[in-house]
Amino acid sequence: MKIAVDAMGGDNAPATIVEGVERARDEQQAIEFVLYGDENQIRPLLKSDERISIVHTTEKIEMDEHPVKAVRRKKQASMVLAAHAVKDGEADAMFSAGSTGALLAAGLFIVGRIRGVDRPGLMPTLPSVNSDSGFVMLDVGANADNRPSQLYQYAVMGNFYARDVRGIKNPRVALLNNGTEPTKGDDLHQQTHQILAAAQGLNFIGNVESSSLLDGAADVVVTDGFTGNAALKAIEGTSHTLLHEIKAAIMNGGIKGKLGGLLLKGSIKGIVQKFDASRYGGAVLLGLQAPVVKAHGAADATTVYYTILQIQAMVENKTISKVIDYFAEHGVDSPTPTQD
Amino acid sequence: MKIAVDAMGGDNAPATIVEGVERARDEQQAIEFVLYGDENQIRPLLKSDERISIVHTTEKIEMDEHPVKAVRRKKQASMVLAAHAVKDGEADAMFSAGSTGALLAAGLFIVGRIRGVDRPGLMPTLPSVNSDSGFVMLDVGANADNRPSQLYQYAVMGNFYARDVRGIKNPRVALLNNGTEPTKGDDLHQQTHQILAAAQGLNFIGNVESSSLLDGAADVVVTDGFTGNAALKAIEGTSHTLLHEIKAAIMNGGIKGKLGGLLLKGSIKGIVQKFDASRYGGAVLLGLQAPVVKAHGAADATTVYYTILQIQAMVENKTISKVIDYFAEHGVDSPTPTQD
Repeated sequence: MKIAVDAMGGDNAPATIVEGVERARDEQQAIEFVLYGDENQIRPLLKSDERISIVHTTEKIEMDEHPVKAVRRKKQASMVLAAHAVKDGEADAMFSAGSTGALLAAGLFIVGRIRGVDRPGLMPTLPSVNSDSGFVMLDVGANADNRPSQLYQYAVMGNFYARDVRGIKNPRVALLNNGTEPTKGDDLHQQTHQILAAAQGLNFIGNVESSSLLDGAADVVVTDGFTGNAALKAIEGTSHTLLHEIKAAIMNGGIKGKLGGLLLKGSIKGIVQKFDASRYGGAVLLGLQAPVVKAHGAADATTVYYTILQIQAMVENKTISKVIDYFAEHGVDSPTPTQD
Repeated sequence: MKIAVDAMGGDNAPATIVEGVERARDEQQAIEFVLYGDENQIRPLLKSDERISIVHTTEKIEMDEHPVKAVRRKKQASMVLAAHAVKDGEADAMFSAGSTGALLAAGLFIVGRIRGVDRPGLMPTLPSVNSDSGFVMLDVGANADNRPSQLYQYAVMGNFYARDVRGIKNPRVALLNNGTEPTKGDDLHQQTHQILAAAQGLNFIGNVESSSLLDGAADVVVTDGFTGNAALKAIEGTSHTLLHEIKAAIMNGGIKGKLGGLLLKGSIKGIVQKFDASRYGGAVLLGLQAPVVKAHGAADATTVYYTILQIQAMVENKTISKVIDYFAEHGVDSPTPTQD
């Protein structure tokens, strides 16, 4: 398989990108890479060009550019060229640590949507306390407004991903809502609940509240992009703040604190690792014709490496083809809920 | 001042309610209490009936009842009687640890809304790392659907509360959104942003993301009830899960873990206290004609005590009157944003 890599996106590009790509290349014989970016910067970083080629370009999309305009105007940008490689069948999937908005635009306008899917959803994998598989949640911010049929499509796509890529048998699909009762929420969430309950081939377990996500209440959490964004950022912010406070308490706790910290170092490191989602790779823009995966702008080489493995799993498992087949068979429109 | 207390609402009622009320009574000479509930249960718990009277009733609203129906049918329920005492001017404010939905219904149908306020918002006070004042957030779930004018009203009400009850000079008011730029979010949040920017007497600092709430990014966080509910529960769930994991790591860490835990006990206890919001009292149903405040169903006597102090501060500061005056002067309709 061939993966198109935007080598210039991200805070530490191209260095961390190249390092992560080479680690994946060394371990995974089946992957070839095409790196899009400044050859003068990339070439000196490469240990070897085995299964790595470079397509030289000096244009790149900056983080503060208007996403749609940038993608339309900068036709030679590294991200845009990588997207075209996927569109033209030269690559099977695409990686970028650049602007999420620009990647969404490149995905929509160049790679293209799966037939009938209204909007791609942005889907990260998050840790859960009880399972090493974690859980996926979508949409977390590709869209601010959603309709029930879009949430249905997210559920179907997240289900295939959780099953094939995360290896979860019969994933438990749930709707993020403001209570667990079926009648909870606004119109959007009440309608979506009925649709998901009527959907074929989905193990829909009902509503879930954001308080129980990290406890592993569901494997696939379906949410509108606005609420999903708020929940995701609240989880990230709270873990970050709490772990920072604990670290500060240890450092400022004098001899007692430092000694206690030393004794608990292993345990706390274990917790930090457990809640570090980077081993699951990046966030997938699910709903496009090929895997398009976004790593954090601040991603280090290890995260880039895991994101490449994640893309490999999506390509090998033909996740996108399965989604296309499902929608071809069952329709992209949400099923009509049975009246009760 | 007189506070009407629903003595039968909550998991440990009436015991914890009575204990918390007596502690407040012993310390605060200015407060009189009327306890609504089963006198046969309440009387034996009382150390003294100084400034505490009991209105006997055996009817109460259960947690799983339909809120509106329960409030309408159970005319002798402890919560309903307490609400009527406020409505009839016999009490200045009301406390309950019972069903949130029922309290909202009792607030709307019995206590009544502030003229022109569309819907009351549920407002807890949450801790922030940098300030002992914490921050308030509303709405966190009284309403699943909101219009921009309602969010404007939340901003005004939260502002008075933060200033007068929390003692924050010129509170920083922010809109919870999916990005900090003014153009972020769906229609509701874009419109609300413009309205808040045009509102008089509000120190509106723009959008805030849920990742920075605990870091004290704002003093008053304005949000629609659905998003606010998701953010609040994500914060609560993440802190709970993380602190539980740390405790488990200490307990399962053998001698090393236990010794480390012992050394860090004070530091970790400090963090737990810092993130324990119960010292701020309960969640206010803001937008009603009088202070109506809800403690957690699982509230202990200490939380009940702090919630009584919170109610006292609202009555003493005339927070509700100030809100009424503001709306009388500036109108309850959202100001027209200036076109740019």
